Amino acid sequence: MPEANRRIVLAARPTGMVDEATVRLETDPRPEPAPGEALVRVNHLSIDPTIRTWMNDSPGYLPPIGIGDVIRSGGIGEVVETKSDRYRLGDLVFGMTGWQEYAIADEADRSMQPIPEGLDPPTALNLFGINGMTAYFGLLDVGALQEKDTVVVSGAAGATGSTVGQIAKLKGASKVVGIAGGPEKCAYVVDELGFDGAVDYRAPSLGARLHEQCPAGIDVYFDNVGGTILNTALAQLAMRGRIVLCGAIAAYNATEPVPGPGNYVNLIRRRGRMEGFIILDYASRFPQAQREIFAWLLEGKLKHAEHIVEGLEHAPEALNLLFTGGNTGKVVVKL
Amino acid sequence: MPEANRRIVLAARPTGMVDEATVRLETDPRPEPAPGEALVRVNHLSIDPTIRTWMNDSPGYLPPIGIGDVIRSGGIGEVVETKSDRYRLGDLVFGMTGWQEYAIADEADRSMQPIPEGLDPPTALNLFGINGMTAYFGLLDVGALQEKDTVVVSGAAGATGSTVGQIAKLKGASKVVGIAGGPEKCAYVVDELGFDGAVDYRAPSLGARLHEQCPAGIDVYFDNVGGTILNTALAQLAMRGRIVLCGAIAAYNATEPVPGPGNYVNLIRRRGRMEGFIILDYASRFPQAQREIFAWLLEGKLKHAEHIVEGLEHAPEALNLLFTGGNTGKVVVKL
Repeated sequence: MPEANRRIVLAARPTGMVDEATVRLETDPRPEPAPGEALVRVNHLSIDPTIRTWMNDSPGYLPPIGIGDVIRSGGIGEVVETKSDRYRLGDLVFGMTGWQEYAIADEADRSMQPIPEGLDPPTALNLFGINGMTAYFGLLDVGALQEKDTVVVSGAAGATGSTVGQIAKLKGASKVVGIAGGPEKCAYVVDELGFDGAVDYRAPSLGARLHEQCPAGIDVYFDNVGGTILNTALAQLAMRGRIVLCGAIAAYNATEPVPGPGNYVNLIRRRGRMEGFIILDYASRFPQAQREIFAWLLEGKLKHAEHIVEGLEHAPEALNLLFTGGNTGKVVVKL
Repeated sequence: MPEANRRIVLAARPTGMVDEATVRLETDPRPEPAPGEALVRVNHLSIDPTIRTWMNDSPGYLPPIGIGDVIRSGGIGEVVETKSDRYRLGDLVFGMTGWQEYAIADEADRSMQPIPEGLDPPTALNLFGINGMTAYFGLLDVGALQEKDTVVVSGAAGATGSTVGQIAKLKGASKVVGIAGGPEKCAYVVDELGFDGAVDYRAPSLGARLHEQCPAGIDVYFDNVGGTILNTALAQLAMRGRIVLCGAIAAYNATEPVPGPGNYVNLIRRRGRMEGFIILDYASRFPQAQREIFAWLLEGKLKHAEHIVEGLEHAPEALNLLFTGGNTGKVVVKL
């Protein structure tokens, strides 16, 4: 086993997209597990938009990543040395590994959890990790999906959006429309994922095309992007419609304030609701969601796609993919 | 009884504030009640911001007022001629009278209701009409007020806002802060209405002063105005805070789109909710609210103020007062 631990640390707070000034690849000594701990060799990293928000020096639901600290990130690794009864050699565990080759699993804080047998790590990071959980609880709990609802989801070809739309269909939505960038992603959403329709936000007249697809208005809009797409959806909210605020990709790299959604006024006349959530609040209910998702997976009812980027050193570019729309499905870095 | 009915009709759709081109005073023949109807001599009009929205040619929760039609408005009048068992001579009835001297009460549609004995019309228009009902259900139902909450309300010296703050105190809020325009209104809100604090939105650094008053954040923000005040409150939302969208005075007279609240992103990290409502949806529950409000009134626990403008012909200026902030309390036109 190598004595070194390559890790990517925050060198400077980014303005806009992450670039070579933002991060630095360091080589540190491999950490030693203490009693009650295990050494985990990281093999896959979960690349999520929220990582970009942690790089800013502004208070969020977690503290900012410190300058010089390893980039905070979910990941999966294999237990390669153990001083804990909880972790056996060869176990695959999921947790906040960070962007590095080796991490420590500590039985005391239970922050690293074994993943179910038979699941490959990219699928686990996608459906059983943040994206799958976010899709499930955001749609069903925050969005309070009802049978026969018309559901619209942005970032529909992304990891969260693609699962939101499929769960909506599985739970009885009458119509599911995805918003995605470009004709290929739109075709993917309809042909592969089984959405009823898709709208390309890069083409003109988004509002008119969305209205064509949802003439009776939108009951649940699951928002992964914010910005003008959120504003357009607000204008077409059905009576008592719900907007699930999951993310605001349009704002994460912005160097100037992104205009707010002026059509929020529509929430008044449509008696609508716009609600945000942080998926970590639902942690105690993850097992319930994971059981249902696992069953759908075994029955072949849930499609998923992972976009694999090879090499720890490419993690920053992998993160940028989320903002340029260069991915279809869950972005995972394979070490 | 005069044979004429003076009425104010919509002459042209306004751009910005209502002016002399917007409305026209007409003299029509007094209407004749048919069997099942009564003739009502209007004595007070309820002047509400929503009237301004009905003048626009855009779909709302009610259709726009037609060009040449009487201005739609709540009001109270006395039954002066009756062909209905439901309405007795001398009864005071509340309903959508419109800006005119005479209106028809029709027993079939029950749109005109007797007001409780012993209530003078301005008080009834304020506390038992749209403002009182909006304050009650907006705060308790949409805002889901909890004991110990910190509550902030804008338009705090206005009819709805002043009642919101007082009901919040009566229902156990630990702190109630009003936002109002100018030192006099701020003093009124604290000294007369018993709010715990007030912030003048016309003075600089609204955000910092609001934070001083609510260092632990805002649990319920009752928004009567929209615009930058809403955006400032969003930035200071407490965990699981609720924003009640009641109105958007800042936008009603705007001739260009009002910027949306960019801080809506805070709803995500604070797990917040922003919800709109239309008080007419609660009509079946008005009696419940009116009983509780009547009890508070009898016990001297609910202060109220009416700003009386004399003369039907001054109704347009009375409406504009709501947007210039020239009123303290409920604006009522006395005929």
